Amino acid sequence: MGAAKRKRVPRAVREQQMMDAAVRTFARCGYRAASMDEIAERAGVSKPLVYLYLHSKEDLFGAVVRRESAALVAAVTAAVEPGAAADRQLWSGLAGFFAHTAAHPDGWAVLHQQARAQGEPFVVEVAAMRAEIVRFVTGLIGAAAKEAGCAGELADREAAGLAHALVGAAESLAEWVNAPTAEGTSSAVGAAPDRPTAEEAAGTLMNFAWTGLDRRMRGARWAPA
Amino acid sequence: MGAAKRKRVPRAVREQQMMDAAVRTFARCGYRAASMDEIAERAGVSKPLVYLYLHSKEDLFGAVVRRESAALVAAVTAAVEPGAAADRQLWSGLAGFFAHTAAHPDGWAVLHQQARAQGEPFVVEVAAMRAEIVRFVTGLIGAAAKEAGCAGELADREAAGLAHALVGAAESLAEWVNAPTAEGTSSAVGAAPDRPTAEEAAGTLMNFAWTGLDRRMRGARWAPA
Repeated sequence: MGAAKRKRVPRAVREQQMMDAAVRTFARCGYRAASMDEIAERAGVSKPLVYLYLHSKEDLFGAVVRRESAALVAAVTAAVEPGAAADRQLWSGLAGFFAHTAAHPDGWAVLHQQARAQGEPFVVEVAAMRAEIVRFVTGLIGAAAKEAGCAGELADREAAGLAHALVGAAESLAEWVNAPTAEGTSSAVGAAPDRPTAEEAAGTLMNFAWTGLDRRMRGARWAPA
Repeated sequence: MGAAKRKRVPRAVREQQMMDAAVRTFARCGYRAASMDEIAERAGVSKPLVYLYLHSKEDLFGAVVRRESAALVAAVTAAVEPGAAADRQLWSGLAGFFAHTAAHPDGWAVLHQQARAQGEPFVVEVAAMRAEIVRFVTGLIGAAAKEAGCAGELADREAAGLAHALVGAAESLAEWVNAPTAEGTSSAVGAAPDRPTAEEAAGTLMNFAWTGLDRRMRGARWAPA
């Protein structure tokens, strides 16, 4: 009866369920400590079925990293209003980023904390996803510089540096906002009450970053007093 | 003769040599792939001596994480001029951070890329080091708000958010500046020619962050047009 019922679930659906279980397990236990037993149990399938469909813990982790990377890039890209002013695009991209990471804290933990330290090929895949976002932000900063009338003045290298700074600031804020609380409350049940919401985080970063970028575009520089 | 010579090296010195070799190996191979054989060979000692002094790969990694964390916090703390204006303190702390990470790219890779994903107890140790730096930056932002005459207006939660953003921006810039180049040139031989120097990175971040913070202190907020 159970076996007959199980057969009705298409492979593609079953694989997504296994990946859902894997994301949660990897995020909470870490890659090394995560066991295929736990993943199979959480997905409600047998361990041999996980191996049949996704081959190994390493392949499963790779599939999870690719799925979560693609989902994050898609969420940020979809949030941006094409043709809007650069600051508006940046704001909507940040809002999309914080909303997606708040809704998928386990996927974010896998990408941000687990995948980058697991060596090849995961670190390369996550670096490619991150580079895509940095390029996008570099383009927005370039467009903003042009809108502010300082095209060419802001060296490409500085625009790239500013984009790296902004992406790192967003990652750090997302980590803080979505971290499990001290009481052990899971991040999946929502941000801790003393942490900002996704929208507040986007607002904080925009208040901080945009005003700084805006003044930088207009030639302002900090100098020691 | 070799054994007699070896005995003259005090244990404390030998342990530092082993840790130097371990930092380089962990940074380049990752924790999982790093072998005790390679670490012993790089340190110029026998593998049993590494086990005798530092017990296990896990203990060695823990010792490395604690040493590199303490060195980073000490470098940032020593760089800050006590009693200076908040912006000056922030600038000198950032300059100290970028100078230290540029001089010790392998130690930075172990802390930033390896340790955070290796689970307990490493993740807790690195988080404690990072929290110490975030608290310090939160204090500077609070002091800057007070200097700008807006004490109490900048909510504690927003100051903490800004500090997380700034620390994340600095980490991301340091990762970019110190990353190995595409040609495989090691990060230990210096930043790639198209990447900013440590001082330029501190300047870029200060230009970006301080002008934004400064305007934020004075009540400026970004709002969609």
